[in-house]
Amino acid sequence: MTNLVLLRHGQSEWNKLGKFTGWVDVDLSPEGCKEAISAGERLRKEGMTFDLVYTSVLKRAIRTTWLALERMDRMYLPIQNSWRLNERHYGALQGLSKEEMTKVHGKEAVHAWRRGYDVRPPALDSTDPMNPRFDPRYRGVDPAELPSCESLKDTLERVLPYWNKEILPQVLAGRDVLVSAHGNSLRALVKHLDGISDEKIADLNIPTGIPLVYEMKGETVQGHRYLASEEELDKATQKAAAVR
Amino acid sequence: MTNLVLLRHGQSEWNKLGKFTGWVDVDLSPEGCKEAISAGERLRKEGMTFDLVYTSVLKRAIRTTWLALERMDRMYLPIQNSWRLNERHYGALQGLSKEEMTKVHGKEAVHAWRRGYDVRPPALDSTDPMNPRFDPRYRGVDPAELPSCESLKDTLERVLPYWNKEILPQVLAGRDVLVSAHGNSLRALVKHLDGISDEKIADLNIPTGIPLVYEMKGETVQGHRYLASEEELDKATQKAAAVR
Repeated sequence: MTNLVLLRHGQSEWNKLGKFTGWVDVDLSPEGCKEAISAGERLRKEGMTFDLVYTSVLKRAIRTTWLALERMDRMYLPIQNSWRLNERHYGALQGLSKEEMTKVHGKEAVHAWRRGYDVRPPALDSTDPMNPRFDPRYRGVDPAELPSCESLKDTLERVLPYWNKEILPQVLAGRDVLVSAHGNSLRALVKHLDGISDEKIADLNIPTGIPLVYEMKGETVQGHRYLASEEELDKATQKAAAVR
Repeated sequence: MTNLVLLRHGQSEWNKLGKFTGWVDVDLSPEGCKEAISAGERLRKEGMTFDLVYTSVLKRAIRTTWLALERMDRMYLPIQNSWRLNERHYGALQGLSKEEMTKVHGKEAVHAWRRGYDVRPPALDSTDPMNPRFDPRYRGVDPAELPSCESLKDTLERVLPYWNKEILPQVLAGRDVLVSAHGNSLRALVKHLDGISDEKIADLNIPTGIPLVYEMKGETVQGHRYLASEEELDKATQKAAAVR
């Protein structure tokens, strides 16, 4: 049995402000740093070891990874970064507050953008300076693959090749793996792992800062559990549902 | 022309105490953290960009890397860790103070261990719990390759295969590379790059926290310079010579 552990980063500076973040490279808030350290402490207490760590190219996930590894005294573990583990790209909504959006576009449109499985938000213009093609971190990526907005379905479709090509082979080789990423890239992965339907995935909220352990036998999920008490988990899940 | 930048980590908790450190996984002191941040600031000001970062599996070098990248706003850069970039292994001297050693073994023996190119300190016993074979971070390494003590020559001999196989091909492919490591693994690399003789290498002291930029044309060094004023450099080099 090998362990695949999913970890969602904690509060960012923009979560605090209620803004759509997506690919904007916002840092963790002090509260988010605490969540990352507590995640590392939970993993340490559980005696979890890893052979490899995967994360996105966004600093809120990278800082979460660094803080958790530091707490586990495993700073030396190899970390692979990929844009394919980034948060869902929120297109032209990035940087706008959820409240403002609701006023302009109405509650229903915003709800559809946030919860509809295959609903795309308005795209970023190709000349917009926020467009990922202008960001040096994506220099090595084919510009045609870089999104200017994404539905959750789009996110799943760019996470999956990375899962199949990079992460799954490690799991199959018996390596214990940590994936430290974002609400929606992890929801996409969980949808795939647990075979959740397009409709049901809207109801799934992954709490922040609480490691989710999948016990894998080859490609098959044997079971999963959060490293938290039921009470802690309820509280964290409610918080996650409220801010999404 | 591609840039190969060497960065030596700053003060560790044991540097402060005057102890032989080697492969013991001691963290940076607060002063060492400041040095790392200032290194990042120097790289940022110079407008240095990198495609890849190499570091050891020891946390004082990893933390230096993380702090410098954070200051450069380049946390997303891929980082490769290798034991081959570790500090020289100081064998049975690890954890002992330089002062104590001098009292027991005499000034000449300690001087030879520290400065002689091919002089090995006393080895760690194979059953010593400090022996790297008991450390999970070296699980993937052939135990026959793991040292129980090293001369600078030994260090050079295990750094070189990594240079030739991993780092040099990236330089040849035109990628700008940062190598964030230790006094002796970097001296070994500089000896190789600049063709310094076995005798002369004893006089080379690489200052901590000041990036050393090699301008490379293919495999050939075109020139090198420290990112510091002459005055800053003199001060830092004297400090490095005094603590070695």
